Amino acid sequence: MKGHFITFEGGEGAGKSTQIQYLAEALKARGYDVVITREPGGSPGAEAVRHVLLSGGAEEFGVRMEAILFAAARSDHVEELIRPEVEAGKIVLCDRFMDSSRVYQGVTGGLEPDFIRSLERIAINGMIPDLTIILDLPAEVGLSRARARGDDQGIKPDRYEKEALAVQEKRRDAFLDLAAREPQRCKVIDGTQPADAIAQEIEKLAFTLLGDHTPNGADHAEAEPS
Amino acid sequence: MKGHFITFEGGEGAGKSTQIQYLAEALKARGYDVVITREPGGSPGAEAVRHVLLSGGAEEFGVRMEAILFAAARSDHVEELIRPEVEAGKIVLCDRFMDSSRVYQGVTGGLEPDFIRSLERIAINGMIPDLTIILDLPAEVGLSRARARGDDQGIKPDRYEKEALAVQEKRRDAFLDLAAREPQRCKVIDGTQPADAIAQEIEKLAFTLLGDHTPNGADHAEAEPS
Repeated sequence: MKGHFITFEGGEGAGKSTQIQYLAEALKARGYDVVITREPGGSPGAEAVRHVLLSGGAEEFGVRMEAILFAAARSDHVEELIRPEVEAGKIVLCDRFMDSSRVYQGVTGGLEPDFIRSLERIAINGMIPDLTIILDLPAEVGLSRARARGDDQGIKPDRYEKEALAVQEKRRDAFLDLAAREPQRCKVIDGTQPADAIAQEIEKLAFTLLGDHTPNGADHAEAEPS
Repeated sequence: MKGHFITFEGGEGAGKSTQIQYLAEALKARGYDVVITREPGGSPGAEAVRHVLLSGGAEEFGVRMEAILFAAARSDHVEELIRPEVEAGKIVLCDRFMDSSRVYQGVTGGLEPDFIRSLERIAINGMIPDLTIILDLPAEVGLSRARARGDDQGIKPDRYEKEALAVQEKRRDAFLDLAAREPQRCKVIDGTQPADAIAQEIEKLAFTLLGDHTPNGADHAEAEPS
Protein backbone atom coordinates (compact mmCIF):
# COMPACT_ATOMS: atom_id res chain seq x y z
CA MET A 1 0.00 0.00 0.00
CA LYS A 2 1.64 3.19 -1.23
CA GLY A 3 1.04 6.43 0.63
CA HIS A 4 0.68 9.80 -1.07
CA PHE A 5 1.55 13.38 -0.32
CA ILE A 6 -0.76 16.15 -1.58
CA THR A 7 -0.17 19.85 -0.91
CA PHE A 8 -2.50 22.85 -1.21
CA GLU A 9 -1.17 26.24 -2.23
CA GLY A 10 -2.46 29.69 -3.11
CA GLY A 11 -2.80 33.19 -1.75
CA GLU A 12 -4.81 34.36 1.25
CA GLY A 13 -8.53 33.53 1.23
CA ALA A 14 -8.23 30.96 -1.56
CA GLY A 15 -10.17 28.38 0.43
CA LYS A 16 -7.35 25.91 1.06
CA SER A 17 -8.49 24.69 4.48
CA THR A 18 -12.11 24.23 3.34
CA GLN A 19 -11.00 22.20 0.33
CA ILE A 20 -8.63 20.09 2.41
CA GLN A 21 -11.58 19.15 4.66
CA TYR A 22 -13.75 18.24 1.64
CA LEU A 23 -11.04 16.08 0.07
CA ALA A 24 -10.29 14.36 3.39
CA GLU A 25 -13.96 13.39 3.71
CA ALA A 26 -14.12 12.12 0.12
CA LEU A 27 -10.99 10.03 0.64
CA LYS A 28 -12.15 8.64 3.97
CA ALA A 29 -15.49 7.72 2.38
CA ARG A 30 -13.56 5.46 0.00
CA GLY A 31 -11.63 3.87 2.86
CA TYR A 32 -8.37 5.76 2.65
CA ASP A 33 -6.42 6.69 5.76
CA VAL A 34 -5.97 10.48 5.72
CA VAL A 35 -3.72 12.81 7.71
CA ILE A 36 -4.29 16.59 7.59
CA THR A 37 -1.44 18.92 8.44
CA ARG A 38 -0.21 22.46 7.73
CA GLU A 39 2.82 24.68 7.41
CA PRO A 40 4.49 26.35 9.11
CA GLY A 41 4.04 23.81 11.89
CA GLY A 42 2.64 20.30 11.82
CA SER A 43 5.03 18.64 14.29
CA PRO A 44 5.99 19.66 17.86
CA GLY A 45 9.39 21.11 16.86
CA ALA A 46 7.90 22.84 13.83
CA GLU A 47 5.00 24.27 15.85
CA ALA A 48 7.52 25.81 18.26
CA VAL A 49 9.18 27.56 15.33
CA ARG A 50 5.78 28.50 13.83
CA HIS A 51 4.93 30.33 17.02
CA VAL A 52 8.08 32.45 16.71
CA LEU A 53 7.57 33.03 12.98
CA LEU A 54 3.95 34.19 13.11
CA SER A 55 4.08 36.11 16.37
CA GLY A 56 5.48 39.22 14.74
CA GLY A 57 8.68 38.98 16.82
CA ALA A 58 10.28 37.42 13.77
CA GLU A 59 9.98 40.72 11.92
CA GLU A 60 13.06 41.79 13.85
CA PHE A 61 15.03 38.87 12.38
CA GLY A 62 16.74 39.21 9.03
CA VAL A 63 14.94 37.75 6.01
CA ARG A 64 17.64 35.11 5.59
CA MET A 65 17.33 33.91 9.17
CA GLU A 66 13.56 33.83 8.84
CA ALA A 67 13.79 31.70 5.69
CA ILE A 68 16.19 29.29 7.41
CA LEU A 69 13.85 29.02 10.40
CA PHE A 70 11.03 28.09 8.02
CA ALA A 71 13.33 25.41 6.61
CA ALA A 72 14.08 24.09 10.11
CA ALA A 73 10.36 23.81 10.81
CA ARG A 74 9.77 22.12 7.44
CA SER A 75 12.55 19.61 8.00
CA ASP A 76 11.08 18.59 11.34
CA HIS A 77 7.61 18.37 9.81
CA VAL A 78 8.89 16.17 6.96
CA GLU A 79 10.97 13.82 9.10
CA GLU A 80 8.64 13.55 12.10
CA LEU A 81 5.26 13.46 10.37
CA ILE A 82 4.98 13.59 6.57
CA ARG A 83 7.52 10.92 5.62
CA PRO A 84 6.56 8.39 8.34
CA GLU A 85 2.84 8.74 7.54
CA VAL A 86 3.33 8.42 3.78
CA GLU A 87 5.61 5.42 4.34
CA ALA A 88 2.87 3.90 6.52
CA GLY A 89 0.57 4.09 3.47
CA LYS A 90 -1.46 7.15 4.44
CA ILE A 91 -2.55 10.10 2.35
CA VAL A 92 -1.09 13.26 3.81
CA LEU A 93 -2.87 16.53 2.92
CA CYS A 94 -0.79 19.59 3.73
CA ASP A 95 -1.89 23.24 3.83
CA ARG A 96 1.10 25.06 2.25
CA PHE A 97 4.52 23.51 1.62
CA MET A 98 7.65 24.26 -0.40
CA ASP A 99 5.86 26.30 -3.08
CA SER A 100 4.81 28.86 -0.47
CA SER A 101 8.49 29.37 0.38
CA ARG A 102 9.35 29.78 -3.29
CA VAL A 103 6.67 32.45 -3.62
CA TYR A 104 6.61 34.22 -0.23
CA GLN A 105 10.37 34.20 0.39
CA GLY A 106 11.78 33.82 -3.10
CA VAL A 107 9.53 36.01 -5.23
CA THR A 108 8.08 38.63 -2.88
CA GLY A 109 10.67 38.21 -0.09
CA GLY A 110 13.57 39.22 -2.29
CA LEU A 111 15.83 36.27 -1.49
CA GLU A 112 18.05 34.84 -4.22
CA PRO A 113 16.54 31.86 -6.10
CA ASP A 114 19.73 29.83 -5.45
CA PHE A 115 19.41 30.35 -1.73
CA ILE A 116 15.74 29.33 -1.77
CA ARG A 117 16.49 26.23 -3.85
CA SER A 118 19.30 25.14 -1.51
CA LEU A 119 17.09 25.62 1.53
CA GLU A 120 14.27 23.69 -0.15
CA ARG A 121 16.54 20.72 -0.85
CA ILE A 122 17.77 20.75 2.74
CA ALA A 123 14.29 21.01 4.22
CA ILE A 124 12.35 18.51 2.14
CA ASN A 125 15.14 15.94 1.77
CA GLY A 126 13.51 14.37 -1.31
CA MET A 127 9.92 14.60 -0.02
CA ILE A 128 8.42 16.21 -3.15
CA PRO A 129 4.59 16.27 -3.21
CA ASP A 130 2.90 13.79 -5.55
CA LEU A 131 0.28 16.42 -6.32
CA THR A 132 0.02 20.14 -5.60
CA ILE A 133 -3.34 21.87 -5.85
CA ILE A 134 -3.00 25.59 -6.55
CA LEU A 135 -6.19 27.49 -5.74
CA ASP A 136 -6.12 30.52 -8.00
CA LEU A 137 -8.01 33.70 -7.18
CA PRO A 138 -7.76 37.39 -8.13
CA ALA A 139 -5.85 39.16 -5.36
CA GLU A 140 -8.72 41.47 -4.36
CA VAL A 141 -11.16 38.57 -3.97
CA GLY A 142 -8.72 36.60 -1.84
CA LEU A 143 -7.80 39.53 0.38
CA SER A 144 -11.40 40.59 0.97
CA ARG A 145 -12.32 37.00 1.87
CA ALA A 146 -9.37 36.79 4.25
CA ARG A 147 -10.34 40.10 5.85
CA ALA A 148 -13.98 39.09 6.19
CA ARG A 149 -12.87 35.86 7.86
CA GLY A 150 -10.72 37.87 10.26
CA ASP A 151 -13.59 40.21 11.10
CA ASP A 152 -16.21 37.49 11.39
CA GLN A 153 -14.20 35.34 13.73
CA GLY A 154 -12.63 38.20 15.65
CA ILE A 155 -9.21 36.89 14.61
CA LYS A 156 -6.42 39.40 14.26
CA PRO A 157 -5.12 39.00 10.70
CA ASP A 158 -1.60 37.59 10.73
CA ARG A 159 1.30 39.55 9.32
CA TYR A 160 0.90 38.19 5.80
CA GLU A 161 -2.75 39.18 5.58
CA LYS A 162 -1.84 42.75 6.42
CA GLU A 163 0.22 43.04 3.28
CA ALA A 164 -0.93 44.90 0.25
CA LEU A 165 -2.86 43.96 -2.84
CA ALA A 166 0.06 44.50 -5.23
CA VAL A 167 2.15 41.97 -3.34
CA GLN A 168 -0.75 39.51 -3.35
CA GLU A 169 -1.11 39.88 -7.12
CA LYS A 170 2.62 39.26 -7.58
CA ARG A 171 2.30 36.07 -5.56
CA ARG A 172 -0.63 34.92 -7.65
CA ASP A 173 1.49 35.31 -10.79
CA ALA A 174 4.34 33.45 -9.10
CA PHE A 175 2.09 30.47 -8.22
CA LEU A 176 0.80 30.36 -11.81
CA ASP A 177 4.35 30.57 -13.07
CA LEU A 178 5.61 27.63 -11.05
CA ALA A 179 2.56 25.60 -12.02
CA ALA A 180 3.44 26.23 -15.68
CA ARG A 181 6.97 24.97 -15.04
CA GLU A 182 5.87 21.79 -13.23
CA PRO A 183 2.55 20.92 -14.90
CA GLN A 184 2.84 17.25 -13.92
CA ARG A 185 2.87 17.98 -10.20
CA CYS A 186 1.01 21.31 -9.98
CA LYS A 187 -2.63 21.69 -10.95
CA VAL A 188 -4.26 25.12 -11.01
CA ILE A 189 -7.92 25.35 -10.03
CA ASP A 190 -10.15 28.39 -10.48
CA GLY A 191 -10.92 29.42 -6.90
CA THR A 192 -13.78 31.74 -7.89
CA GLN A 193 -16.02 28.72 -8.59
CA PRO A 194 -18.54 27.53 -5.96
CA ALA A 195 -16.84 25.44 -3.27
CA ASP A 196 -18.51 22.17 -4.36
CA ALA A 197 -17.40 22.61 -7.98
CA ILE A 198 -13.83 23.15 -6.76
CA ALA A 199 -14.11 20.10 -4.52
CA GLN A 200 -15.20 17.94 -7.48
CA GLU A 201 -12.21 19.03 -9.56
CA ILE A 202 -9.83 18.29 -6.71
CA GLU A 203 -11.37 14.86 -6.03
CA LYS A 204 -10.95 13.95 -9.67
CA LEU A 205 -7.27 14.89 -9.60
CA ALA A 206 -6.72 13.03 -6.33
CA PHE A 207 -8.44 9.83 -7.49
CA THR A 208 -6.48 9.92 -10.75
CA LEU A 209 -3.27 10.18 -8.71
CA LEU A 210 -4.38 7.24 -6.58
CA GLY A 211 -5.26 5.19 -9.65
CA ASP A 212 -8.73 4.84 -8.14
CA HIS A 213 -11.19 4.73 -11.02
CA THR A 214 -14.17 3.18 -9.25
CA PRO A 215 -17.34 5.25 -9.75
CA ASN A 216 -18.21 7.57 -6.93
CA GLY A 217 -20.84 6.25 -4.53
CA ALA A 218 -21.72 5.28 -0.99
CA ASP A 219 -21.34 1.58 -1.79
CA HIS A 220 -17.57 2.14 -2.00
CA ALA A 221 -17.35 3.54 1.50
CA GLU A 222 -15.96 0.29 2.87
CA ALA A 223 -13.72 -0.50 -0.07
CA GLU A 224 -10.00 -0.96 0.53
CA PRO A 225 -7.74 1.38 -1.41
CA SER A 226 -6.42 -0.20 -4.58
CA MET B 1 41.20 49.86 6.47
CA LYS B 2 40.42 46.18 5.95
CA GLY B 3 38.70 44.23 8.72
CA HIS B 4 39.48 40.61 9.54
CA PHE B 5 37.61 37.59 10.79
CA ILE B 6 39.42 35.10 13.04
CA THR B 7 37.76 32.01 14.50
CA PHE B 8 38.81 29.74 17.38
CA GLU B 9 38.02 26.04 17.28
CA GLY B 10 38.75 22.89 19.28
CA GLY B 11 37.19 20.45 21.71
CA GLU B 12 35.96 21.14 25.22
CA GLY B 13 38.48 22.64 27.66
CA ALA B 14 40.94 23.64 24.93
CA GLY B 15 41.21 27.18 26.31
CA LYS B 16 39.49 29.02 23.47
CA SER B 17 37.94 31.80 25.55
CA THR B 18 41.16 32.47 27.49
CA GLN B 19 43.14 32.73 24.26
CA ILE B 20 40.54 34.99 22.65
CA GLN B 21 40.90 37.40 25.60
CA TYR B 22 44.72 37.34 25.29
CA LEU B 23 44.64 38.01 21.56
CA ALA B 24 42.07 40.78 21.96
CA GLU B 25 44.33 42.54 24.46
CA ALA B 26 47.39 42.16 22.23
CA LEU B 27 45.48 43.59 19.26
CA LYS B 28 44.01 46.47 21.23
CA ALA B 29 47.50 47.30 22.55
CA ARG B 30 48.53 47.86 18.94
CA GLY B 31 45.56 50.08 18.26
CA TYR B 32 43.24 47.63 16.51
CA ASP B 33 39.50 47.74 17.01
CA VAL B 34 38.44 44.29 18.26
CA VAL B 35 35.03 42.61 18.58
CA ILE B 36 34.68 39.35 20.54
CA THR B 37 31.75 37.06 19.81
CA ARG B 38 30.76 33.41 20.04
CA GLU B 39 28.62 30.67 18.54
CA PRO B 40 25.94 29.57 18.84
CA GLY B 41 24.70 33.08 19.52
CA GLY B 42 26.38 36.45 19.08
CA SER B 43 23.37 38.46 17.82
CA PRO B 44 19.88 38.87 19.33
CA GLY B 45 18.19 36.46 16.89
CA ALA B 46 21.02 33.95 17.21
CA GLU B 47 21.02 34.17 21.01
CA ALA B 48 17.31 33.32 20.99
CA VAL B 49 18.09 30.17 19.01
CA ARG B 50 21.15 29.43 21.20
CA HIS B 51 18.89 29.36 24.23
CA VAL B 52 16.69 26.71 22.63
CA LEU B 53 19.68 24.69 21.37
CA LEU B 54 21.62 24.50 24.63
CA SER B 55 18.69 24.17 27.01
CA GLY B 56 18.39 20.46 26.46
CA GLY B 57 14.89 20.87 25.00
CA ALA B 58 16.50 20.62 21.58
CA GLU B 59 17.35 16.98 22.29
CA GLU B 60 13.74 16.22 21.40
CA PHE B 61 14.23 17.73 17.94
CA GLY B 62 15.60 15.65 15.10
CA VAL B 63 19.30 16.02 14.29
CA ARG B 64 18.48 17.60 10.93
CA MET B 65 16.24 20.25 12.45
CA GLU B 66 18.86 20.97 15.09
CA ALA B 67 21.53 21.47 12.43
CA ILE B 68 19.25 23.81 10.47
CA LEU B 69 18.52 25.82 13.63
CA PHE B 70 22.28 26.21 14.14
CA ALA B 71 22.47 27.48 10.56
CA ALA B 72 19.65 30.00 11.21
CA ALA B 73 21.52 31.31 14.24
CA ARG B 74 24.77 31.50 12.26
CA SER B 75 23.14 33.35 9.39
CA ASP B 76 21.78 35.97 11.76
CA HIS B 77 25.16 36.25 13.49
CA VAL B 78 26.96 36.69 10.16
CA GLU B 79 24.54 39.24 8.69
CA GLU B 80 23.81 41.24 11.84
CA LEU B 81 27.25 41.29 13.46
CA ILE B 82 30.25 39.64 11.79
CA ARG B 83 29.93 41.04 8.28
CA PRO B 84 29.03 44.63 9.31
CA GLU B 85 31.89 44.76 11.85
CA VAL B 86 34.47 43.34 9.42
CA GLU B 87 33.27 45.75 6.74
CA ALA B 88 33.68 48.57 9.25
CA GLY B 89 37.38 47.60 9.52
CA LYS B 90 37.27 45.75 12.84
CA ILE B 91 38.90 42.48 13.83
CA VAL B 92 36.21 40.00 14.81
CA LEU B 93 37.29 37.12 17.08
CA CYS B 94 34.72 34.34 17.22
CA ASP B 95 34.56 31.40 19.65
CA ARG B 96 33.47 28.51 17.36
CA PHE B 97 32.13 28.88 13.82
CA MET B 98 31.52 26.71 10.77
CA ASP B 99 34.21 24.14 11.60
CA SER B 100 32.37 23.22 14.80
CA SER B 101 29.33 22.37 12.69
CA ARG B 102 31.43 20.26 10.36
CA VAL B 103 32.80 18.33 13.33
CA TYR B 104 29.93 18.23 15.86
CA GLN B 105 27.12 17.71 13.33
CA GLY B 106 28.94 16.27 10.34
CA VAL B 107 31.47 13.90 11.89
CA THR B 108 30.05 12.91 15.28
CA GLY B 109 26.44 13.94 14.57
CA GLY B 110 26.05 11.48 11.71
CA LEU B 111 24.66 13.95 9.16
CA GLU B 112 25.63 13.59 5.50
CA PRO B 113 28.61 15.73 4.42
CA ASP B 114 26.55 17.11 1.49
CA PHE B 115 23.84 18.30 3.84
CA ILE B 116 26.40 19.96 6.15
CA ARG B 117 28.14 21.64 3.20
CA SER B 118 24.85 23.01 1.83
CA LEU B 119 23.87 24.34 5.24
CA GLU B 120 27.29 25.92 5.68
CA ARG B 121 27.02 27.77 2.37
CA ILE B 122 23.55 28.99 3.29
CA ALA B 123 24.57 30.13 6.76
CA ILE B 124 27.90 31.86 6.09
CA ASN B 125 26.96 33.38 2.72
CA GLY B 126 30.62 33.80 1.71
CA MET B 127 31.85 34.90 5.15
CA ILE B 128 34.81 32.46 5.38
CA PRO B 129 37.24 33.18 8.26
CA ASP B 130 40.59 34.72 7.27
CA LEU B 131 42.26 32.63 9.97
CA THR B 132 41.07 29.71 12.10
CA ILE B 133 43.02 28.79 15.23
CA ILE B 134 42.52 25.14 16.20
CA LEU B 135 43.52 24.48 19.80
CA ASP B 136 44.51 20.83 19.88
CA LEU B 137 44.43 18.78 23.06
CA PRO B 138 44.20 15.07 23.96
CA ALA B 139 40.54 14.32 24.70
CA GLU B 140 41.11 13.30 28.34
CA VAL B 141 42.98 16.55 29.14
CA GLY B 142 40.26 18.69 27.55
CA LEU B 143 37.41 16.86 29.23
CA SER B 144 39.00 16.92 32.69
CA ARG B 145 39.66 20.69 32.29
CA ALA B 146 36.08 21.26 31.20
CA ARG B 147 34.80 19.24 34.16
CA ALA B 148 37.06 21.07 36.62
CA ARG B 149 35.81 24.38 35.24
CA GLY B 150 32.24 23.20 35.66
CA ASP B 151 32.88 22.16 39.29
CA ASP B 152 34.88 25.27 40.18
CA GLN B 153 32.34 27.70 38.85
CA GLY B 154 29.29 25.73 39.89
CA ILE B 155 28.23 25.66 36.24
CA LYS B 156 26.19 22.71 35.10
CA PRO B 157 28.13 21.22 32.17
CA ASP B 158 26.18 21.73 28.96
CA ARG B 159 24.95 18.79 26.93
CA TYR B 160 28.12 18.52 24.86
CA GLU B 161 30.37 18.35 27.90
CA LYS B 162 28.41 15.38 29.18
CA GLU B 163 29.43 13.35 26.18
CA ALA B 164 32.04 10.66 26.30
CA LEU B 165 35.77 10.55 25.78
CA ALA B 166 35.60 8.46 22.61
CA VAL B 167 33.41 11.03 20.91
CA GLN B 168 35.76 13.81 22.02
CA GLU B 169 38.73 11.94 20.55
CA LYS B 170 36.87 11.50 17.26
CA ARG B 171 36.23 15.23 17.17
CA ARG B 172 39.88 15.97 17.82
CA ASP B 173 40.80 13.84 14.81
CA ALA B 174 38.17 15.62 12.73
CA PHE B 175 39.54 19.08 13.59
CA LEU B 176 43.07 17.91 12.69
CA ASP B 177 41.74 16.44 9.49
CA LEU B 178 40.05 19.62 8.32
CA ALA B 179 43.14 21.64 9.25
CA ALA B 180 45.18 19.34 7.01
CA ARG B 181 42.75 19.99 4.16
CA GLU B 182 42.76 23.78 4.55
CA PRO B 183 46.28 24.54 5.82
CA GLN B 184 46.18 28.12 4.54
CA ARG B 185 43.20 29.05 6.72
CA CYS B 186 43.49 26.62 9.64
CA LYS B 187 46.44 26.62 12.03
CA VAL B 188 46.77 23.91 14.67
CA ILE B 189 48.29 24.89 18.01
CA ASP B 190 49.37 22.49 20.76
CA GLY B 191 46.95 23.25 23.57
CA THR B 192 48.99 21.40 26.22
CA GLN B 193 51.57 24.24 26.28
CA PRO B 194 51.43 26.92 28.99
CA ALA B 195 48.81 29.56 28.19
CA ASP B 196 51.36 32.32 27.50
CA ALA B 197 53.28 30.16 25.01
CA ILE B 198 50.01 29.46 23.19
CA ALA B 199 49.16 33.16 23.23
CA GLN B 200 52.51 34.02 21.64
CA GLU B 201 51.96 31.55 18.80
CA ILE B 202 48.49 32.93 18.15
CA GLU B 203 49.67 36.55 18.21
CA LYS B 204 52.34 35.72 15.65
CA LEU B 205 49.78 34.15 13.33
CA ALA B 206 47.39 37.08 13.77
CA PHE B 207 50.01 39.75 13.13
CA THR B 208 51.20 37.88 10.05
CA LEU B 209 47.61 37.85 8.78
CA LEU B 210 47.33 41.58 9.44
CA GLY B 211 50.62 42.25 7.68
CA ASP B 212 51.75 43.93 10.90
CA HIS B 213 55.49 43.33 11.28
CA THR B 214 56.35 46.07 13.73
CA PRO B 215 58.31 44.72 16.74
CA ASN B 216 56.21 44.03 19.81
CA GLY B 217 56.41 46.72 22.48
CA ALA B 218 54.54 49.28 24.53
CA ASP B 219 55.68 52.12 22.26
CA HIS B 220 53.43 50.72 19.56
CA ALA B 221 50.33 50.86 21.73
CA GLU B 222 49.13 54.01 20.02
CA ALA B 223 50.10 52.98 16.52
CA GLU B 224 47.41 52.88 13.87
CA PRO B 225 46.89 49.51 12.20
CA SER B 226 48.92 49.24 9.01
